[in-house]
Amino acid sequence: MVKNEQGVGIVETRSVTFEQPLKLESGEELGPITLAFESYGKLGRAKDNAVLITHALSGDAHAAGYHTPNDRKPGWWNHMIGPGRPFDTDKYFILCSNVIGGCKGSTGPSSVDPKTGKPYNLSFPVVTIADMVKAQKLLVEHFGIERLLSVAGGSMGGQQALEWAVRYPDHILSAIPIATTARLSAQGIAFDEVGRQAIYADSKWQSGNYTLNDKVPAEGLAVARMLAHITYLSEESMHAKFGRRLQEKERYGYDFSTDFKVESYLRYQGESFIRRFDANTYLYITKAIDYFDLERDYGSLEKAFNHVTAKFLVLSFSSDWLFPTSNSKDIVRALKINKKNVTFCEIPSPYGHDAFLIPNEFQERMVSGFLNHVMKTNRQ
Amino acid sequence: MVKNEQGVGIVETRSVTFEQPLKLESGEELGPITLAFESYGKLGRAKDNAVLITHALSGDAHAAGYHTPNDRKPGWWNHMIGPGRPFDTDKYFILCSNVIGGCKGSTGPSSVDPKTGKPYNLSFPVVTIADMVKAQKLLVEHFGIERLLSVAGGSMGGQQALEWAVRYPDHILSAIPIATTARLSAQGIAFDEVGRQAIYADSKWQSGNYTLNDKVPAEGLAVARMLAHITYLSEESMHAKFGRRLQEKERYGYDFSTDFKVESYLRYQGESFIRRFDANTYLYITKAIDYFDLERDYGSLEKAFNHVTAKFLVLSFSSDWLFPTSNSKDIVRALKINKKNVTFCEIPSPYGHDAFLIPNEFQERMVSGFLNHVMKTNRQ
Repeated sequence: MVKNEQGVGIVETRSVTFEQPLKLESGEELGPITLAFESYGKLGRAKDNAVLITHALSGDAHAAGYHTPNDRKPGWWNHMIGPGRPFDTDKYFILCSNVIGGCKGSTGPSSVDPKTGKPYNLSFPVVTIADMVKAQKLLVEHFGIERLLSVAGGSMGGQQALEWAVRYPDHILSAIPIATTARLSAQGIAFDEVGRQAIYADSKWQSGNYTLNDKVPAEGLAVARMLAHITYLSEESMHAKFGRRLQEKERYGYDFSTDFKVESYLRYQGESFIRRFDANTYLYITKAIDYFDLERDYGSLEKAFNHVTAKFLVLSFSSDWLFPTSNSKDIVRALKINKKNVTFCEIPSPYGHDAFLIPNEFQERMVSGFLNHVMKTNRQ
Repeated sequence: MVKNEQGVGIVETRSVTFEQPLKLESGEELGPITLAFESYGKLGRAKDNAVLITHALSGDAHAAGYHTPNDRKPGWWNHMIGPGRPFDTDKYFILCSNVIGGCKGSTGPSSVDPKTGKPYNLSFPVVTIADMVKAQKLLVEHFGIERLLSVAGGSMGGQQALEWAVRYPDHILSAIPIATTARLSAQGIAFDEVGRQAIYADSKWQSGNYTLNDKVPAEGLAVARMLAHITYLSEESMHAKFGRRLQEKERYGYDFSTDFKVESYLRYQGESFIRRFDANTYLYITKAIDYFDLERDYGSLEKAFNHVTAKFLVLSFSSDWLFPTSNSKDIVRALKINKKNVTFCEIPSPYGHDAFLIPNEFQERMVSGFLNHVMKTNRQ
């Protein structure tokens, strides 16, 4: 594990509020909007060294470093961000914000609706990946950054990177979509929907109004998380990590307590998630992931990429079956048809979809080299 | 679809009760035991033409035919059973019983415990595949059948076929384990556990005592079923059947009602399941599937098959990722090491694990030819 002192050190989450309402894809308006964000490294005088990191479903603005010296865990992409790391804070200004619809400081369903003085809950409008990106654009402008050196993220973060490249061709030099898709598969939508149904099924959910009476739908959210967690791993890595080994017993219990290590692990994943995540946000964010579809928006993926100017680094992982390599190849093919500059690599890894969050030499080298190249080419 | 009049026609589920308690693998005893069963075709005078069909998680004794002329659907393996079909009722006597632990007429958690006069609920002992098979042996003996021509089933039904071959080598001539495994993967256990957690999370489950107050944990059971259903299909078949098509709308709803066809389909699957299945039985049967492990029981799969005498037909389906071909190959390898008579085929199909329930020419021909051969060889 990378040590604290080698990384960005102690950081804090800040926030900025934009008063002007944002026009959403649904036609509704949302505002004022607060965005929680963190930044690492220094923005150069020319403001040409900014990289936006975009997070996945359960991520947040805290991508690197520690909030206090006592924190048990650093930010979610800590091994990727810091001096000498791929997102090198000696060179780049790294920015990461919690998405709108989130529950980690940005405006989302648990925020107070200024019109009513009460939490939005399900009156919060459904937001899309494009809406999240439009809000991020405000943050980037807030820093006076005309053009981002790169937008990089995995999974839903990769969807945002794609959206940035398509929506703001004049404002980004490169994009690094990792373990992602331009349109989620029917199977992916199905898993998301069952997760939502698990939340709806929790009697404490109360049609999303649980914040009013302070009883949260923890059990439904835990089921959703446990299910999703299986899809983030691979059969191979689960076999290696757990197999059919029993949890602190020699023989089967012949009851419904925990028998297998994999059951114990999943229960732990569910229990720890409910302490840090909001059930309504889970609904909104999975919906945004399901809705994202560049083919639908532009007629085809080829057309979507017509006006793209960004250089691309597209990465996938060999054992990822939720956002499989074939999805990345669809992106690469459509970019190539448009004669865009694209580098692609399927990284060998047994860790499934979660591989992008785990230290991996290939990913680190590819990102590092690519960003170096983009920076150098831009300054020539 | 095969027409009613071409099959076994109108059938009925009967039952038989065995007073003597059954000694279970857990050490507990269960009795009296009632088994619900159906039979098709005629048991020959020599009683050498009997085939036992074993069912999967949500199956029952009603494998073929119709209970009334108005039934919308026939038994679950209707296309496989009947005159001229693979399980040819002109030649064979076909027997199928609901497993113990079930909710379709055999003794299970919703049955009344004679000791208390109340439903067992969670006081019902945890039963295993071996226990189910021991109960089936009583039924076979009840018919005076010394040796079964074959035991055939898919998924959990295949686990029972394996157990029969290992446990009663002198009492079966052949086994047809289809789309099954000698030990479920960590990923498979994980999916089962999340299904159970969805049931536990339903406040109406009441630690299994819902029958007492007549409010059933329907929502939790529906979530479990929706989740499991995804694992029975393949990404490929879901893409072909649903893709990202919307359900009776042209554009996204930007709300949490149904957007995609695949969501509508899953909701329907959940809703129809809760009308025909019991939540506690779901817990018990998934536990039996998870526990089944011939390697654990015998030290290795090779050792498990040491004393097997049955001829084997092992079938898997190319797109089945829940009980993948590699699991079938493990069985075949261990049988071959023991120099047993085994035929294996991976059948090409896009339909995932559910393929064994769907008409498939390969499966039909393989089963038909194999049974013919076993019958002929036996009578020589």
